[in-house]
Amino acid sequence: MIRVTVWNENIHEKEMENVAKIYPKGIHGTIAEALRQCPDLEVREATLDMPYQGLSDEVLANTDVLIWWGHCGHHLVDDALVERIRSRVWGGMGFIALHSAHMSKPFRTLMGTPCTLRWRDGDFERLWVVDPQHPIARGLGEYIELEEEEMYGEPFGISNPDDVVFMGWFSGGEVFRSGCTFRRGAGKIFYFQPGHETCPIYHHPQIQQILRNAVHWAAPADGVGSEPTCPCAIPSPEAVRKHKDA
Amino acid sequence: MIRVTVWNENIHEKEMENVAKIYPKGIHGTIAEALRQCPDLEVREATLDMPYQGLSDEVLANTDVLIWWGHCGHHLVDDALVERIRSRVWGGMGFIALHSAHMSKPFRTLMGTPCTLRWRDGDFERLWVVDPQHPIARGLGEYIELEEEEMYGEPFGISNPDDVVFMGWFSGGEVFRSGCTFRRGAGKIFYFQPGHETCPIYHHPQIQQILRNAVHWAAPADGVGSEPTCPCAIPSPEAVRKHKDA
Amino acid sequence: MIRVTVWNENIHEKEMENVAKIYPKGIHGTIAEALRQCPDLEVREATLDMPYQGLSDEVLANTDVLIWWGHCGHHLVDDALVERIRSRVWGGMGFIALHSAHMSKPFRTLMGTPCTLRWRDGDFERLWVVDPQHPIARGLGEYIELEEEEMYGEPFGISNPDDVVFMGWFSGGEVFRSGCTFRRGAGKIFYFQPGHETCPIYHHPQIQQILRNAVHWAAPADGVGSEPTCPCAIPSPEAVRKHKDA
Amino acid sequence: MIRVTVWNENIHEKEMENVAKIYPKGIHGTIAEALRQCPDLEVREATLDMPYQGLSDEVLANTDVLIWWGHCGHHLVDDALVERIRSRVWGGMGFIALHSAHMSKPFRTLMGTPCTLRWRDGDFERLWVVDPQHPIARGLGEYIELEEEEMYGEPFGISNPDDVVFMGWFSGGEVFRSGCTFRRGAGKIFYFQPGHETCPIYHHPQIQQILRNAVHWAAPADGVGSEPTCPCAIPSPEAVRKHKDA
Repeated sequence: MIRVTVWNENIHEKEMENVAKIYPKGIHGTIAEALRQCPDLEVREATLDMPYQGLSDEVLANTDVLIWWGHCGHHLVDDALVERIRSRVWGGMGFIALHSAHMSKPFRTLMGTPCTLRWRDGDFERLWVVDPQHPIARGLGEYIELEEEEMYGEPFGISNPDDVVFMGWFSGGEVFRSGCTFRRGAGKIFYFQPGHETCPIYHHPQIQQILRNAVHWAAPADGVGSEPTCPCAIPSPEAVRKHKDA
Repeated sequence: MIRVTVWNENIHEKEMENVAKIYPKGIHGTIAEALRQCPDLEVREATLDMPYQGLSDEVLANTDVLIWWGHCGHHLVDDALVERIRSRVWGGMGFIALHSAHMSKPFRTLMGTPCTLRWRDGDFERLWVVDPQHPIARGLGEYIELEEEEMYGEPFGISNPDDVVFMGWFSGGEVFRSGCTFRRGAGKIFYFQPGHETCPIYHHPQIQQILRNAVHWAAPADGVGSEPTCPCAIPSPEAVRKHKDA
Repeated sequence: MIRVTVWNENIHEKEMENVAKIYPKGIHGTIAEALRQCPDLEVREATLDMPYQGLSDEVLANTDVLIWWGHCGHHLVDDALVERIRSRVWGGMGFIALHSAHMSKPFRTLMGTPCTLRWRDGDFERLWVVDPQHPIARGLGEYIELEEEEMYGEPFGISNPDDVVFMGWFSGGEVFRSGCTFRRGAGKIFYFQPGHETCPIYHHPQIQQILRNAVHWAAPADGVGSEPTCPCAIPSPEAVRKHKDA
Repeated sequence: MIRVTVWNENIHEKEMENVAKIYPKGIHGTIAEALRQCPDLEVREATLDMPYQGLSDEVLANTDVLIWWGHCGHHLVDDALVERIRSRVWGGMGFIALHSAHMSKPFRTLMGTPCTLRWRDGDFERLWVVDPQHPIARGLGEYIELEEEEMYGEPFGISNPDDVVFMGWFSGGEVFRSGCTFRRGAGKIFYFQPGHETCPIYHHPQIQQILRNAVHWAAPADGVGSEPTCPCAIPSPEAVRKHKDA
């Protein structure tokens, strides 16, 4: 059983009628529903307006994969929570950053990079599968078309990704590394570009398939351990010898 | 002209007689002297006990490559200074983290990873050149022997490096990725393992050669720019078109 | 069911008494036995002295993962067979190159690099797990000790590996990237250093565990397809538009 | 002085009037002229119809960087020449594969991968600089527009590149990793997508700038050595010790 927590700042849904219409249960609600189609996933929803910003010690301690959607509320997330998330990722928790979460505190902290990009509203996107063998691309065809999506364009201020699974083509003339994987400590990270709040992206069956794939890919094989700390000196019996001429 | 600042917490030198004996001018002083052999390097020294912890806005604004040695004083470094260093690296400043700086605030912040490792005092190290074509390995032979050095062992909690230039062999039975490169924003980063304070590592001619090589490698080709920020929307004339059926 | 073929040149076993004593059923026989402990593996043995050098079209067409041990008979392997192996790897077949197979025709053809290394007989090796989360490292401790093994040392003439899972420490003073992964076309490749013919390496329980892990990791998720060929022009309906001003 | 040889199969120029019109001196002639603007480049031209297919032992032995344009004549290139090129790249010669050279014998041999891609005639391309700090991108703006170019689309059957410098956007809806770097042995390799024979790509000032940048990047720092061969056993004095309990 993989325990997934879908976190959403849940602000646009409350403040913008057009977003509320697309996501009456919130972006988190729609994503959670999509994940619940897998019997091996135990899915919890969490939002910024909950106690402990939705992620108490207990919730985090029972999360194997954390999905994150945030945008205008990035600055509202507690720094202490960001540190707890980082520690848990280092211990093995998977982390999936969606769309504007490229500028979220947890993602930037884990990347160590600016995470900036180029953007513009209202493009058509063709999302290409550039690594068809990758587990996150399983069951998809050659590409997915999104009739309307916010354009995100290169250069994308990330570290060299381990794998680039998807690349986005935008009608306005831009390209983007739309699905990238990273590892930080024992944890696996997936950044996925589609998901602007005013477009019904997370209702798209293939986008939902990608999210299900990504959760299974990011889940730690042997559970989440503690954050690694600097190991003590190795007891001398384990050392083969200590000096060149010993 | 490449402007280098050699920063050192400069604590061991003042508190431990054996360290002071090895480095009467401080670790920073010895490194600075080694760099001054290159006429194209303008070298400044900076220490934790100076005003602004040695790195005022002006000093940082005039630094192309920052070398960092820290150990017991990691926690004393101002968080605001760490952020300024990170921003400048993102803008293009090179950053060279030496030895125990693997746990320094700037390095960990730039890595986004635990940076933990295994250690033990007093080993013999053979430092292998595993990427002989790398600019940082220029002018070296096949390996360097260090009669005594602190053992640092794998697993090393870093992200996948762009290049592994050196690997360390320790007589006690451990191996380590002793010289690794990374990129964060526009800045180049080099981590280099040798340099325990009680061993005269930075007096070693080939270690000095590596540091000179690393500074030249890490220097930004076109100066340091500003930290990248999220670009504005691209003016419409640049967009090829905005909708599929436009 | 994963169909594994364990290929061995099987020369030393027939010509050297000490090797025959260690591997009375051949290196392939010992490895095959270790793999047969997994009920999901269907294991076949193949040797150079069989018809079609052990790998007829039919055998290859029914192989999901090919394990390769070769040494003094590299030059005897048919070039046409090498091309068929390469094609099948490109189509998705996993390929595991053991020890001296670093200089085998299939491995070098797939790498595109010299694959050279440094070597010396008769060292003690400590094999470190440097990527404990990697599926190939599952169920192992921190390291494995091999009382006697041929030393393989850096620099190792490979392309930058996707992952370095193991690193070897040798008592003579050398280090080596002893377990590396690569991808070529749709196929996954694992190079694994231990396994000199005069040492009983493949009888070691943890080495056997690594081989079982590697086979499961290298197996293609959705079977082996055909070698990719240059796709035809995409029919025009799929193109969004063909000219800037269309 | 960097010695560059620009090799071209030079077939289209002789058989197709429209190509001859664009490149009256051949594709190689236009590229060579662009490179000769740099006083530190010594530029030679070589074509398939010359003796030794343009690349005698002597020519190759005096080439630091080899540029390759081929298309319909891939199969005509001698296998022995391909092996000599591969050896020299392993020894340190830079290799720049242009456009349809993705399917050339030398490039595929060096990659070890299928190198297949998707294609279609007659698109508009916007070539994005996605790694603005890379030496090959020096002096360019954010992107280059090519009014007409053959579309090359993902998935591109290469191994994970070391760096992706350029990404192409095509008006028909495709994306491509248009500028990628690799290392094979001591040699640096750059693949660059633009350059269909019926389009005047190599007359474009910024494309010429990219080629000049790429030659300087690919040139070996210390000349080209011999192809690496398996080193002999290390003489015993260099070994720290040979057995655990020695």
